Amino acid sequence: MTAASEPHLAVPEGVHPFPHDHLLGIEGLKPWEIAFLLDEADRWSNPENTRLREGALTGLTQINAFFENSTRTLVSFEIAGKRLGADVVSMAVGASSVKKGETLLDTALTLNAMHPDVLVIRHEAAGAVALIASKVDCPVLNAGDGAHEHPTQALLDALTIRHRKGRLTGLKIAICGDILHSRVARSNFHLLASMGADVRAVAPPTLMPPALDQFGISATTSMETGLKDADVVMMLRLQRERMQGSYLPSEREYFRFYGLTEERLAHAADDVLVMHPGPMNRGVEIATSVADDIQRSAITEQVEMGVAVRMACLDVLTRRIRGLEGWA
Amino acid sequence: MTAASEPHLAVPEGVHPFPHDHLLGIEGLKPWEIAFLLDEADRWSNPENTRLREGALTGLTQINAFFENSTRTLVSFEIAGKRLGADVVSMAVGASSVKKGETLLDTALTLNAMHPDVLVIRHEAAGAVALIASKVDCPVLNAGDGAHEHPTQALLDALTIRHRKGRLTGLKIAICGDILHSRVARSNFHLLASMGADVRAVAPPTLMPPALDQFGISATTSMETGLKDADVVMMLRLQRERMQGSYLPSEREYFRFYGLTEERLAHAADDVLVMHPGPMNRGVEIATSVADDIQRSAITEQVEMGVAVRMACLDVLTRRIRGLEGWA
Amino acid sequence: MTAASEPHLAVPEGVHPFPHDHLLGIEGLKPWEIAFLLDEADRWSNPENTRLREGALTGLTQINAFFENSTRTLVSFEIAGKRLGADVVSMAVGASSVKKGETLLDTALTLNAMHPDVLVIRHEAAGAVALIASKVDCPVLNAGDGAHEHPTQALLDALTIRHRKGRLTGLKIAICGDILHSRVARSNFHLLASMGADVRAVAPPTLMPPALDQFGISATTSMETGLKDADVVMMLRLQRERMQGSYLPSEREYFRFYGLTEERLAHAADDVLVMHPGPMNRGVEIATSVADDIQRSAITEQVEMGVAVRMACLDVLTRRIRGLEGWA
Repeated sequence: MTAASEPHLAVPEGVHPFPHDHLLGIEGLKPWEIAFLLDEADRWSNPENTRLREGALTGLTQINAFFENSTRTLVSFEIAGKRLGADVVSMAVGASSVKKGETLLDTALTLNAMHPDVLVIRHEAAGAVALIASKVDCPVLNAGDGAHEHPTQALLDALTIRHRKGRLTGLKIAICGDILHSRVARSNFHLLASMGADVRAVAPPTLMPPALDQFGISATTSMETGLKDADVVMMLRLQRERMQGSYLPSEREYFRFYGLTEERLAHAADDVLVMHPGPMNRGVEIATSVADDIQRSAITEQVEMGVAVRMACLDVLTRRIRGLEGWA
Repeated sequence: MTAASEPHLAVPEGVHPFPHDHLLGIEGLKPWEIAFLLDEADRWSNPENTRLREGALTGLTQINAFFENSTRTLVSFEIAGKRLGADVVSMAVGASSVKKGETLLDTALTLNAMHPDVLVIRHEAAGAVALIASKVDCPVLNAGDGAHEHPTQALLDALTIRHRKGRLTGLKIAICGDILHSRVARSNFHLLASMGADVRAVAPPTLMPPALDQFGISATTSMETGLKDADVVMMLRLQRERMQGSYLPSEREYFRFYGLTEERLAHAADDVLVMHPGPMNRGVEIATSVADDIQRSAITEQVEMGVAVRMACLDVLTRRIRGLEGWA
Repeated sequence: MTAASEPHLAVPEGVHPFPHDHLLGIEGLKPWEIAFLLDEADRWSNPENTRLREGALTGLTQINAFFENSTRTLVSFEIAGKRLGADVVSMAVGASSVKKGETLLDTALTLNAMHPDVLVIRHEAAGAVALIASKVDCPVLNAGDGAHEHPTQALLDALTIRHRKGRLTGLKIAICGDILHSRVARSNFHLLASMGADVRAVAPPTLMPPALDQFGISATTSMETGLKDADVVMMLRLQRERMQGSYLPSEREYFRFYGLTEERLAHAADDVLVMHPGPMNRGVEIATSVADDIQRSAITEQVEMGVAVRMACLDVLTRRIRGLEGWA
């Protein structure tokens, strides 16, 4: 799949397939590095393999430090680590030392001193995960940092699309909703543009970031325009707390203009794929009939691919410390 | 024990001992199915065996999704799963996605997409666990749903009685307290009636459900009447939040009329067994001297049996996916 | 290291190196018992060994029952148990049964009935851990009880000092801050005095306990006096909630008189070691330049030693139930 037809996805000769210590974001990754992670994840994405245990991480300590709550992402990383045999320790740091006035760097040094072999970090501030990564001795996996990046989400979205469509290159993909505040959108922009997809951002004017065209992304405030002939529609979760501010008039207004309805979806390709990172606000950003359309919705498949992608990332990032040939 | 003397507990020829996908409640289980689960639990209930590890669930993923808090039940299921070798992941869902507005069905589909091999679910709404079970591909174990059922509690109560009394058939068993709101009482009614015990419900008029006689349960508002010659007295926990409502005048009044005192217990059989699902409100539903009576109280033994019963349920429910002969 | 030069640290002939069922505090431990735990911890304290797995606790159940929050201590105990192969179950009891009105003893009996092989307990009340230990059948490890003791903290402090200074005997060690409320200070007083160090307590008059001289501790309200020629300075965390009371005028005042600055540290020995149990309040009890002084600060090394010390304690306390020769 990554061969002759898509030469930009082949690892150039003499080049390492993934020479990075951390996975802090999609920005800056080469197309073949992204394809390499997706290929690795393919191995775990087969439902037949969910009970496959390779023990690649046996004897390693994985700490999930979530400074921001997210049950589903945390569970996904816990399952991924445990399936690989790691000793997994999770801390909901939000309620802890940080509240006691400890600085982020001191927390990072404390975590590091416990000799984890891989750190999975989620933080409400953009850049916080990179700051921690700069201070620790082990690989760091960004599980979402503020409005910056959420790389495993973009990878699982890409894996889902590849499974359904066979490729990413050349697909027309609309990303719709609160683009301005979304790390999911940002990571997807980097990934999809890098892989050669035709990406459109659809958002109300108050929720559209400036200068998207420099990423090669086209922007529109009209759902109808954005969805025209789309192969994939990715809806973003509406953070309801934005409603309090001046960004949006009301949930009803939002649904009226930006909710994904059957009618709007008719503008897309017949075999359009509907995606959502979850949890969904039914009746706000997406109509129930669309969410439940088994043919077109890939929403639960995204969750499934999430575990596979996280297993692949944990595996690849720890190869150096495990002394694997070509990695150590 | 399940042989000649108690023919209703023997598995009829040609019948599967436990043909169910899930354990959602005791209602509807055949007497021999209940006896089968208790026999299975016996293996784990010997204190000599607490360090026995069979690894029956090695390589399987058990997700405990508790939408309602319960530290002791959660810990019991965690220990049970880990002793069997499962990868155990627990989520306190109360504080998470559900609060973000996700529907119960979406949460179920999300959990299912992570390919658990068994789901343990606790929810504050009656029927919620069955609804989830109808949408997922793996066995579901009900760890308590609203005022509906709490099957492992009834099983551990039965196992405790069997250990102490040698049988359930024909025993006089009084269940006392807030019958109306108690899933523990409901599961026990089904189990004990099915096993041939003589069950009496004792409650204040405001906390007694109607039409108990259709279950073969006799009802009384008098502790003295209900406890007369009883072999077992099961006290229920008083949910203190009920006190705010119009159900009860005060904790002192409650204790005066329905608290289990030495004096009241004198109406029961000499070798009466006192039980409580915990946590106890001493001086509200039970007097301290009764709770601490080593001869008659089986309260800590119930906790012990809880781990054994949960190991048995996790083992039995996963036999099909593990491909065990006669189960796959 | 525990040989000829320090005869008080050698185990006397015919004496068991650690004859205790529990580790409830440092008070009452013999110097050679402390040295024995430190020697055992040495094995795990080598960073080369963080991926060493001996499986000493495979098949054993470790329950961490934290009635008081502490993310870093909990994570440290979780990592320690998992590295030794234990099935580790953690419960934040603060939010649970205890709030439902259950007594501490009932909680203890409940935990015990689940047949843990070792219990790690943290509680906000002094003496609570000893009370639980008196009611259960397995070893209990005190992870901090009120203002009483925090033995693994004192042990990890001692291990850190031994690593850096080669010994404890004869060292001048200043412990500075809120001595009155600190279980860390109390455990360290017992340990350091027992090991033959010269210990000084430095605190404002309102935060200095009476009669320290009976422990062989000298007391002073002046940082300059206390730090004079000190080989080690241990700063205590200021519990900010004390500020609300009448103990202290303000954080600024506190820093002005008791904060550890470069200037004050100049009174200590040139090769002074600076320690803090974390999490630090920078600019309150310690200046940032001191905390970050790589040569003199051992703060992250303390965290590292914490995991090693907890592995050693879990290993030693479970030797009897594991039937090790000389222990069973």
